[in-house]
Amino acid sequence: MLIVMSKGATAEEIEVVIKRIEAHGWQAKPIPGGERTAIGILRNHGPVDGAMFLGMPGVRDAIPVSKPYKLVSREMKRENTTISLGNGDVIIGGDKIVVAAGPCAVESEKQAISIAESVKKSGAAIFRAGAFKPRTSPYAFQGLGKKGLQILSKVREETGLFIVSEATDHEVCDVVEKYADIIQIGTRNMQNYRLLKRAGQAKKPVLLKRGMSATMDEFFMAAEYIMSEGNDQVIMCERGIRTFTKHSRNTLDINAIPFMLKTTHLPVMVDPSHAAGRRDQVTALARASVAAGCHGLLVEVHNAPDQAMSDGPQSLLPEEFDDLIKGLKAMNFQV
Amino acid sequence: MLIVMSKGATAEEIEVVIKRIEAHGWQAKPIPGGERTAIGILRNHGPVDGAMFLGMPGVRDAIPVSKPYKLVSREMKRENTTISLGNGDVIIGGDKIVVAAGPCAVESEKQAISIAESVKKSGAAIFRAGAFKPRTSPYAFQGLGKKGLQILSKVREETGLFIVSEATDHEVCDVVEKYADIIQIGTRNMQNYRLLKRAGQAKKPVLLKRGMSATMDEFFMAAEYIMSEGNDQVIMCERGIRTFTKHSRNTLDINAIPFMLKTTHLPVMVDPSHAAGRRDQVTALARASVAAGCHGLLVEVHNAPDQAMSDGPQSLLPEEFDDLIKGLKAMNFQV
Amino acid sequence: MLIVMSKGATAEEIEVVIKRIEAHGWQAKPIPGGERTAIGILRNHGPVDGAMFLGMPGVRDAIPVSKPYKLVSREMKRENTTISLGNGDVIIGGDKIVVAAGPCAVESEKQAISIAESVKKSGAAIFRAGAFKPRTSPYAFQGLGKKGLQILSKVREETGLFIVSEATDHEVCDVVEKYADIIQIGTRNMQNYRLLKRAGQAKKPVLLKRGMSATMDEFFMAAEYIMSEGNDQVIMCERGIRTFTKHSRNTLDINAIPFMLKTTHLPVMVDPSHAAGRRDQVTALARASVAAGCHGLLVEVHNAPDQAMSDGPQSLLPEEFDDLIKGLKAMNFQV
Amino acid sequence: MLIVMSKGATAEEIEVVIKRIEAHGWQAKPIPGGERTAIGILRNHGPVDGAMFLGMPGVRDAIPVSKPYKLVSREMKRENTTISLGNGDVIIGGDKIVVAAGPCAVESEKQAISIAESVKKSGAAIFRAGAFKPRTSPYAFQGLGKKGLQILSKVREETGLFIVSEATDHEVCDVVEKYADIIQIGTRNMQNYRLLKRAGQAKKPVLLKRGMSATMDEFFMAAEYIMSEGNDQVIMCERGIRTFTKHSRNTLDINAIPFMLKTTHLPVMVDPSHAAGRRDQVTALARASVAAGCHGLLVEVHNAPDQAMSDGPQSLLPEEFDDLIKGLKAMNFQV
Repeated sequence: MLIVMSKGATAEEIEVVIKRIEAHGWQAKPIPGGERTAIGILRNHGPVDGAMFLGMPGVRDAIPVSKPYKLVSREMKRENTTISLGNGDVIIGGDKIVVAAGPCAVESEKQAISIAESVKKSGAAIFRAGAFKPRTSPYAFQGLGKKGLQILSKVREETGLFIVSEATDHEVCDVVEKYADIIQIGTRNMQNYRLLKRAGQAKKPVLLKRGMSATMDEFFMAAEYIMSEGNDQVIMCERGIRTFTKHSRNTLDINAIPFMLKTTHLPVMVDPSHAAGRRDQVTALARASVAAGCHGLLVEVHNAPDQAMSDGPQSLLPEEFDDLIKGLKAMNFQV
Repeated sequence: MLIVMSKGATAEEIEVVIKRIEAHGWQAKPIPGGERTAIGILRNHGPVDGAMFLGMPGVRDAIPVSKPYKLVSREMKRENTTISLGNGDVIIGGDKIVVAAGPCAVESEKQAISIAESVKKSGAAIFRAGAFKPRTSPYAFQGLGKKGLQILSKVREETGLFIVSEATDHEVCDVVEKYADIIQIGTRNMQNYRLLKRAGQAKKPVLLKRGMSATMDEFFMAAEYIMSEGNDQVIMCERGIRTFTKHSRNTLDINAIPFMLKTTHLPVMVDPSHAAGRRDQVTALARASVAAGCHGLLVEVHNAPDQAMSDGPQSLLPEEFDDLIKGLKAMNFQV
Repeated sequence: MLIVMSKGATAEEIEVVIKRIEAHGWQAKPIPGGERTAIGILRNHGPVDGAMFLGMPGVRDAIPVSKPYKLVSREMKRENTTISLGNGDVIIGGDKIVVAAGPCAVESEKQAISIAESVKKSGAAIFRAGAFKPRTSPYAFQGLGKKGLQILSKVREETGLFIVSEATDHEVCDVVEKYADIIQIGTRNMQNYRLLKRAGQAKKPVLLKRGMSATMDEFFMAAEYIMSEGNDQVIMCERGIRTFTKHSRNTLDINAIPFMLKTTHLPVMVDPSHAAGRRDQVTALARASVAAGCHGLLVEVHNAPDQAMSDGPQSLLPEEFDDLIKGLKAMNFQV
Repeated sequence: MLIVMSKGATAEEIEVVIKRIEAHGWQAKPIPGGERTAIGILRNHGPVDGAMFLGMPGVRDAIPVSKPYKLVSREMKRENTTISLGNGDVIIGGDKIVVAAGPCAVESEKQAISIAESVKKSGAAIFRAGAFKPRTSPYAFQGLGKKGLQILSKVREETGLFIVSEATDHEVCDVVEKYADIIQIGTRNMQNYRLLKRAGQAKKPVLLKRGMSATMDEFFMAAEYIMSEGNDQVIMCERGIRTFTKHSRNTLDINAIPFMLKTTHLPVMVDPSHAAGRRDQVTALARASVAAGCHGLLVEVHNAPDQAMSDGPQSLLPEEFDDLIKGLKAMNFQV
């Protein structure tokens, strides 16, 4: 933290700030400049909220310098973290693009297996489908629950695809951990700390979706929650942010991809389906994400999107998904 | 939902859209215009996702017409809902401005009672303080938990102030319901549906804070979740939204106040402390909110903000809070 | 500017950064911390773009410390700037709330004078109306031009109201300066530097509207452009920013009011009409702005908003405007 | 425009709305639904501002249906517009990716020719550099002006590259039109209508950059301004939008690429340099944009970015630019 004093700040005002810093047990380091003095705060353990200095006489600004996350940072660990499913059958964070595909929600065994077979043929390595669904409306379909997870187990048996499915709270996490290969934490739960801690105690990898208006610091701190409980198998998933625009449901934060690749050692996946919110943008966003360097994709695919019980409008048809994968290969990516 | 066709859309394309609408059991109502045709969707139960039509040939746009919420709407109930604490000692949603004040977190009995006595003298009717704290960092103070709630009970006994405190998940809700007079649902939990449902089954009023990037529709749907479980004692609380600006932690959505007063019958409170995120803007935001018509305020007050265990930088000092209330009275508001 | 090095940065990497700083003729001041080193940049004249260091080995972050504006800052001038119209008949930036009111566009002499008389009776001191209109659509009414300004002159003669009107480019500024008492620079032109410079050479006060997505730094820099040419009579006008919300055309940035009052000595006005974009929110926003401390308001009023040639939907009726002013007085503000 | 009535709206209230619509000379078409009535507005010439109905009794909402732009729409012209430079030497909007590269500002003939030769060798077809610079700070380098354009002419002679350069106002447009092959309109001028009209009268193609917070409708309307004056050679350029994020200067709106390709016939280019604002994200954004389907790129390249007189920090080095182009070819794109 750097406290920047006003030009006209008096020696007394500077002294009061220094005293206050020291009263917290921190070290104050004054840095006289040409026009004004700044005061660095050192030896703080844990974050300092600079706003606490903003009201003091002579203080102009308080500027955070260090970052609140540690374990997720590439400063802590230089090499990429990779996440291995099976005995290395699928590696997330390596050279190959890993694609998870499937319907928004499990609706029936027949539906699930049929879609799974189709996406596997196209090149998906993981089947994605929700058994527990967080829904904006209390009147909407809430998922099949545990029965849905049992269907997903069957999909794995029959197709060999690995399974990712969402845990909507800490209790649901118990059952998802049992049936799925990857535990998904959804956008709306990115700051559900009880769930994050529970996921941190799980023995399975966690796919963490970014909150709709989360900064990178907040997203990394959510991953830090999981890692601080001992689980270092975390996948960061960009899924679009909320902006002023109206031509798509969200805006894919494509800048976040190079930023994350630089700042964290954790693997990065992208969900182009939610980032678009409409079918006619999904393929372009998927291509863009892979070209920007992400390690994998999470794509909604449904064989009858018009009859899908949720999120049909952003689901690709199996043939569109097949074209998407072919397109990635045509750009010389390994899938 | 209104499906707008392109200018050049053929009769066949229009027919296909109509067929698809009817296949869902809905009624399609074509509306020929001067230049293009639009098709209304009627008799749908529950929301229709217009994006499902966006990829179809000849379709230009899909425009939602009806709103997904019902119980919270002023169309359902024209008169204001008022929420009575005690036997009408405090009425939220009436003519008087109801002010809840107190520290971000309960830290000790001595601290709580001292602040409570002070804010009561200034004019607060409710004491606000967190016992369970959702914290961005896993390394930060997480609250005193149940012990904190017991301290809050004591505050009520000694001062006569009513108590509002946050339930951070559905299990915590049990104990908060027992000790507090109003159950608070925090910003990060606005779409924690399990918690919303649990709150809907509570016998106490619920103060629902708006999510950081929630639209009014989403905010109303969260309240609808609570009401649909049978609890119609919901207070809507605006607390600032996330925008591109940098001069404050959040931007108070002051436009939302007249909009909510018009659109819902539920009472509207404002939290100027979180909307500012820095002490030197809180009073101005509080004054603005009351002038714009809100029914009450939620203000952070701490007697030693520099030593506060959380959110100190946005807490007012007791004398600043006193000035705030005097300022409201000087504008002829009843507090 | 503060360059923050990574934890593992080597002495060589630090040295290279220092060399680069010195190569620009600036002074580098290393600040060793507990875990990492930061390097302050001193003696720079004009802004330094920290991004130039972001790609260098061992550099983690580049944090701006000083602000790019000078003349507009309260650090340069502690006392409020006041702007006097007539011989002190109207003072903007003093204790009284100064209200400018009138139609979006001048449509005819009859209309202008009729509205002017009405708003004067209610308490307006300034008549606002556009003669040159920047319109989103090339097919929309573009204003009466110079003829409109002549009508405004007549309004001044007949009513004694002062006149504010928009200059849409540097050439138009010549004629606006001749006829109006205050030259308005619109939202879309906040970064039209040629116009800003021209306004800086004018002998009349300038009302500068904030750009739709301008930060405070950018807004202040636009004012700095005007002041750097010699005109220190600048009024800062907040008019709503673009956010993700949908219940209003813009979001009034109410936090900006206390921020500006603290950071600049220039007077602050608010345009609640554009900040709302719909009539049913204007009054609430006007009340909120005054309660938050602004020095004046810019309100659209039209006697027949349905027939207005532009922006009718956000115009108040004369009787609504009268109620607005009465409401401000009822809150004990002097208008 | 669709006026949606409240559930409880009376027959009289509906009648009043119909009357008001008809008073404007438009046609009102009531559409009775299951629960409520909506009223369509037909035969309006030019846009209708629905907010004008929002305050009327019984009115719940006003929803725009038709789009305000015509000439830019794919509804008007189904085939892609292509823009040919030379005698078809370079075609923008065709199968090949067209790359414009060069420094932010022309600084000297030597610098310009040296960078131009380098980017040409890598595969650029157009040289981009500013002679007139819009600068946020009045104290910053404002460009070489006409002399800069003369240097650009020389670059064309010596290298065969075509030239794009910015016109900062309508007068500057005269001289830019004379010297450059493409007239650029910058982000801050997207709604400088006088400049748009002037560009519409030019005999050269116009590269129109999107405003920092412009919706697609506003961006298309700006292009409509140009086309409505007779110039149909317009290139739409996405350059990043302003969002809440902090890890990049802007957020590239990658969703806008598929949306524009679908909605307008005009060619689409992307400026990854401004969308990133920092060198370490430019290449990823460039790759993403091409993969998403854009027709060309505008990339800042400088041989000594640390000494660049403007925007150095986001400029690629010539060897980084060369890698970028090689990377596009490795993805099988023709450059």
